Amino acid sequence: MDVTLKADGRGARAETRCRELSRAPYSEEADKLTRRFLTPEHRATIDRISVWMREAGMEPRVDAAGSLVARWEGATANAPALVFGSHVDSVRDAGVYDGMLGVLLGLAVVETVRAAGRQFPFAIEVVGFGDEEGSRFQAAMNGSRAFASRLDVDAALAATDRDGLTLAEAMTAFGLDPSRIAEAGRGLGTLLAFVEPHIEQGPVLEAQGVALGVVTSIAGQWRLKVRYTGQAGHAGTTPMHLRRDPLIAAAEAVLVIGRIAAEGPEGLVATVGQIGVKPGAPNVIPGVAEFTVDVRAGVDAVRDRGLAEIEDVLREIAADRKLGLEIERVQNLPATEMDGRLRGLLSAAAAMKGQVAPDLVSGAGHDAMMLARLAPAAMLFIRCEGGVSHNPAEAVTPDDCEAALDVLLAFVELYAAEFGGE
Amino acid sequence: MDVTLKADGRGARAETRCRELSRAPYSEEADKLTRRFLTPEHRATIDRISVWMREAGMEPRVDAAGSLVARWEGATANAPALVFGSHVDSVRDAGVYDGMLGVLLGLAVVETVRAAGRQFPFAIEVVGFGDEEGSRFQAAMNGSRAFASRLDVDAALAATDRDGLTLAEAMTAFGLDPSRIAEAGRGLGTLLAFVEPHIEQGPVLEAQGVALGVVTSIAGQWRLKVRYTGQAGHAGTTPMHLRRDPLIAAAEAVLVIGRIAAEGPEGLVATVGQIGVKPGAPNVIPGVAEFTVDVRAGVDAVRDRGLAEIEDVLREIAADRKLGLEIERVQNLPATEMDGRLRGLLSAAAAMKGQVAPDLVSGAGHDAMMLARLAPAAMLFIRCEGGVSHNPAEAVTPDDCEAALDVLLAFVELYAAEFGGE
Repeated sequence: MDVTLKADGRGARAETRCRELSRAPYSEEADKLTRRFLTPEHRATIDRISVWMREAGMEPRVDAAGSLVARWEGATANAPALVFGSHVDSVRDAGVYDGMLGVLLGLAVVETVRAAGRQFPFAIEVVGFGDEEGSRFQAAMNGSRAFASRLDVDAALAATDRDGLTLAEAMTAFGLDPSRIAEAGRGLGTLLAFVEPHIEQGPVLEAQGVALGVVTSIAGQWRLKVRYTGQAGHAGTTPMHLRRDPLIAAAEAVLVIGRIAAEGPEGLVATVGQIGVKPGAPNVIPGVAEFTVDVRAGVDAVRDRGLAEIEDVLREIAADRKLGLEIERVQNLPATEMDGRLRGLLSAAAAMKGQVAPDLVSGAGHDAMMLARLAPAAMLFIRCEGGVSHNPAEAVTPDDCEAALDVLLAFVELYAAEFGGE
Repeated sequence: MDVTLKADGRGARAETRCRELSRAPYSEEADKLTRRFLTPEHRATIDRISVWMREAGMEPRVDAAGSLVARWEGATANAPALVFGSHVDSVRDAGVYDGMLGVLLGLAVVETVRAAGRQFPFAIEVVGFGDEEGSRFQAAMNGSRAFASRLDVDAALAATDRDGLTLAEAMTAFGLDPSRIAEAGRGLGTLLAFVEPHIEQGPVLEAQGVALGVVTSIAGQWRLKVRYTGQAGHAGTTPMHLRRDPLIAAAEAVLVIGRIAAEGPEGLVATVGQIGVKPGAPNVIPGVAEFTVDVRAGVDAVRDRGLAEIEDVLREIAADRKLGLEIERVQNLPATEMDGRLRGLLSAAAAMKGQVAPDLVSGAGHDAMMLARLAPAAMLFIRCEGGVSHNPAEAVTPDDCEAALDVLLAFVELYAAEFGGE
């Protein structure tokens, strides 16, 4: 069969738009991108994308969990949808493509379909989830969890941000009704499939000299909150041998956690990304030290062995130093296989567009993990410079974005052909 | 000679008042004491103490640097003053006696003198410095520095709190004129001497089974801000061997700093009391790790050797791990000798009241370090339970406070006798 839809600069425009959305009024900080869930900057971003969605002939809405959703109708009303999308929130001091590029490439698919006057037997939806990173409420993927009806509603609504505001309070301030958050859940029959285009956030594609890759599975994650408790005291008057300083234990833990991952099986990574002490004054010995631990591997057994080893060491350190220890398992995301049929279509689409798109594992978590529980899901990765992400140096080329859109368009046509034509 | 002034419960009342001032509206936090410089809680505290000062026949004022000052006149107008006092601010989650007990014992001296209808050839002043801890603006002793005309005005006014507010802005909000802060400086001839009663904040007096001690010198302090800079990145996609994680370096530094102090000469202590990373999300490898270092010793040469060893190790760690390093020496307080004549009078006063008050070094810094540059200065330490301070478990007994006031009163009478009678 022939595939005829062409990107015609719309992929490159998605790249430009990502940069536009990295500045005021779309970022909380003047000289860097920070856009957390349910902030005024999140609202401004939704409003801007909504303008583009209307220009593409869609009527956007914000669902009950704060996700932006727009729909391009199929040949018949209420047809089930092929969904493209990713998230619009960011970590602090983020890269500008993480999440957003997938949303805007999804939009570019509809823009192209509309420009070509095409209609399919299915609808196409574009989604921008409001919270994937968890950088505000510490539990990630609230948007796609709700979308896939996998949200623990009570726990999610009670989660607090650094100012002590609950998710429920933040939703209300945003104009959402927290008691209706479960209504974001989509009925099983309404979705055909989910495809998430995303910057790779790692060095694999660049090392292979290719623009695109097809994800085979998403690595499993554990996320811990760890708290050592000792005895606060005056920094000048407490002899060293009488101290029970929990930061010393945390420091030992940080070193050992790094060593366990570095010396462990291939693919195991572990990160302490937050740390703090209380009371937290230069002249006070800390009484409490808290930190997070993120453990991942492409294979769940490796991830779980890594976690067990880390937890054992955390306990040994507490016992050795006579400190209190609390370990809270905040998040457990098992590894997620991507759908075989969708992967095949993406690979075929790439080949038809002259692209080599190798298979690869995603070390990062993605909304596709949640969507895979609701419908067949797949991911198309776009090469990123130096493998750098979660960092302002994150970069993609307009050419790679153009290539990605071409492959997504061919994918839609191949999918339609398999589905039974237009 | 006879000493006739008696505490008569006023020392124990000072202890009670410290507890009263540890709760709302005098603390920023509901269930713990946090009272930082120039907060509404600082204002409420000043107002409450001012009521007591007026009841003791004094007219309090707030000086140009936010210190509360009240004066009990001597036999002649404008006589130079014997000054008692300490600070009214606190660290976060503080003990209730640190600083405040010295202010209220000073007040109790005047209350007793007034009740006895006594007048001396000198005035007595009571001072409550607004900022000794530096828990808001990171540079300590702003109040006593200004009082002793030792403030670097421009640097002090530009210092910011965690919300980015400058000291100058906070002063203006408090109703003070920052451009006049230097006017808090006292003329040399207006002060005879400064005596600071203070909870020991260490275990020495308790170990010796005595209520009181006379400070010989105050340990010198260095305070550093240290920043390691590496490369932020995604926690899931960056292999361990490609990371340049500055928190690993900070963790190594925390352990080595503790070891250098523990294995160093007696009296050397070192503390990391604050630590944080940027961007600071569970799923992001830190790009920056920052922490404070506090180094002290009773002898400056020991302190300086400790600092040099720590700075060497910090640099070695940065070089080994190919990280950026900035070390900022935020504070340098050399060790301060207390005045020999005042110490002798305090010891004699203790003996006359049946107390054994041994000499000891203060590991903690105090306002007396600044006042010693302006006038003869001394400190009377009061025993604290378990040596615990900068902690809600900080405790003194009413009996010890009563004993302390008795000694301070005898000291005033001995001082007056040396001065040339009433």
